[in-house]
Amino acid sequence: MRIVALGGGHGLYATLTAMRYLSPDVTAVVTVADDGGSSGRLRAELGVIPPGDLRMALSALMSAPAALADRASRPGRLDRAGHELWTNTFQHRFGGYGALAGHPIGNLLLAGLTEVTGSPVAALDELIDVFDIDGRVLPMSTVPLEIEADVSGLESDPRISRCIRGQVAVATTPGKVRRVRLLPAEPPACAEAVEAIRGADVVVLGPGSWFSSVIPHVLVPDQLNALRETAARKMLFVNLAPEPGETTGFSVERHLHVLHAHADVFRVDDVIVDAASVPAGRERDHLVRAAASFGAQLHVGDLAVPGRHVHDPEKVATLVNELCEGELGR
Amino acid sequence: MRIVALGGGHGLYATLTAMRYLSPDVTAVVTVADDGGSSGRLRAELGVIPPGDLRMALSALMSAPAALADRASRPGRLDRAGHELWTNTFQHRFGGYGALAGHPIGNLLLAGLTEVTGSPVAALDELIDVFDIDGRVLPMSTVPLEIEADVSGLESDPRISRCIRGQVAVATTPGKVRRVRLLPAEPPACAEAVEAIRGADVVVLGPGSWFSSVIPHVLVPDQLNALRETAARKMLFVNLAPEPGETTGFSVERHLHVLHAHADVFRVDDVIVDAASVPAGRERDHLVRAAASFGAQLHVGDLAVPGRHVHDPEKVATLVNELCEGELGR
Repeated sequence: MRIVALGGGHGLYATLTAMRYLSPDVTAVVTVADDGGSSGRLRAELGVIPPGDLRMALSALMSAPAALADRASRPGRLDRAGHELWTNTFQHRFGGYGALAGHPIGNLLLAGLTEVTGSPVAALDELIDVFDIDGRVLPMSTVPLEIEADVSGLESDPRISRCIRGQVAVATTPGKVRRVRLLPAEPPACAEAVEAIRGADVVVLGPGSWFSSVIPHVLVPDQLNALRETAARKMLFVNLAPEPGETTGFSVERHLHVLHAHADVFRVDDVIVDAASVPAGRERDHLVRAAASFGAQLHVGDLAVPGRHVHDPEKVATLVNELCEGELGR
Repeated sequence: MRIVALGGGHGLYATLTAMRYLSPDVTAVVTVADDGGSSGRLRAELGVIPPGDLRMALSALMSAPAALADRASRPGRLDRAGHELWTNTFQHRFGGYGALAGHPIGNLLLAGLTEVTGSPVAALDELIDVFDIDGRVLPMSTVPLEIEADVSGLESDPRISRCIRGQVAVATTPGKVRRVRLLPAEPPACAEAVEAIRGADVVVLGPGSWFSSVIPHVLVPDQLNALRETAARKMLFVNLAPEPGETTGFSVERHLHVLHAHADVFRVDDVIVDAASVPAGRERDHLVRAAASFGAQLHVGDLAVPGRHVHDPEKVATLVNELCEGELGR
């Protein structure tokens, strides 16, 4: 089964860990608009695509429990201990107070290899090859992107919106994010990502930082076209809880409305929400209608790690598998 | 044939390239006293063993013409193009004027992997394994070292010596270096390097920066013991020309005398000098006697790249092979 997972950051990490239970053929398509932390410093200093979320995706595919179990039963170039060591190394941040403090090794390696090969896709494919990782990691766009948002609530008059630029600024603004744009507008898609979406059996979008990791995926025109035209079964995972800064106070329904408002031609087959985040009664009916605006069926299931606002990869994998087998499906 | 090459920097790079023609079983033992450039910044910031000369040795073993030719005829995990790409990546330095400027990727990778594994030897072995490099690279000592030198000619009275500390300072002092010491004194040897020397068929010392890359190898007590006790054929390559700063005005004979003065118990089988750097007549007799102080035969051959003061790896390999086959030997 060919699975493509769209997202960024920790949300995508969890989705990749989940999808890896279902297939070794998992392609991550990753937002490249981060301007904070190590990624922000590297894009400012070197002009490269921000590597942080790409590194996270590589680490997820390398260290997913299913990947490590596969490795134990089907030895490749690197054994299980090797994959664990290299995941730790990719994720390891230099400490202290010096020039390197906070940079993960994987970010530096990806940035350097991108300079040497001249292409982030070539650099990612080379890392996949050398470290013998099943799957593929691709950037959403071949150029570094910026996020710009219309934010209300920053003036005494709540009807006035201000334009806030930069992912960190958008994620931490005390105002309400109304709409996001990518800069450059209509950025070039990654051809390999478009091809992967068109050839996929399943495409998963979300969960993740809604404005900076999820919505950007429908703002790249060629990628949106591929999402519209693919025969893949498309699934949208809504976040388990509002995220401070980005989506403070957002209901599940509001998550769906705001995504729809950014690309009203975007359709999915399944909208998947965690039972604990969905109210009962009439509000659930609203949610069914919100899902219908995507042409989707609503699926409500137990998806969270007990007591925490994170998806449990095994529960997610089980649900996706059931949907694909048609038990709950179209 | 098990070959161990001792040295550092560009001299060791050339020797490894040469030895690789004779055997895939080449172990580099590398000085770790560099305090300049990227290595100096990394040891100061992170407290790691200076990685620069270790990275150079890895690159030499990966990209030696004989290694690339082997790869073409005997495919491993990485093909020839892969080894060329990764050599370029190891050696690639970040540009610009930022915090990373001047750091080669290989230095950052080796420093980070050393932090993760807790050991420079484990980190080097892991790189050898993942990048499928024939041979091995080991540090001369398991702790970062400093070089301290007695230098004359810095005062108006030429009999007065001053103590200069740090490899860069020693290499650039306008005075005459009389003697070098390592700090800490009598540093711990690398157990794996000692074992490699004891098990070798051939041990090669030099060429290289005489005071900072060659002489330090006889100042590590356990390594000197291994050099004295190994049954390997030991060869000493003298530099083709004096090096500004370290050995300005040094004759070949002076190179030998100063090494002997640092470890008078150190013996080799062969002292090898380039014909162009050796005078004829009575001075050559002095040189034979200087070689005899090491218990060695003097071998004079055409070893240089025409018109340049660098050893030609193929010529060096041919000479070493002839010595080993006994045509010129003991």
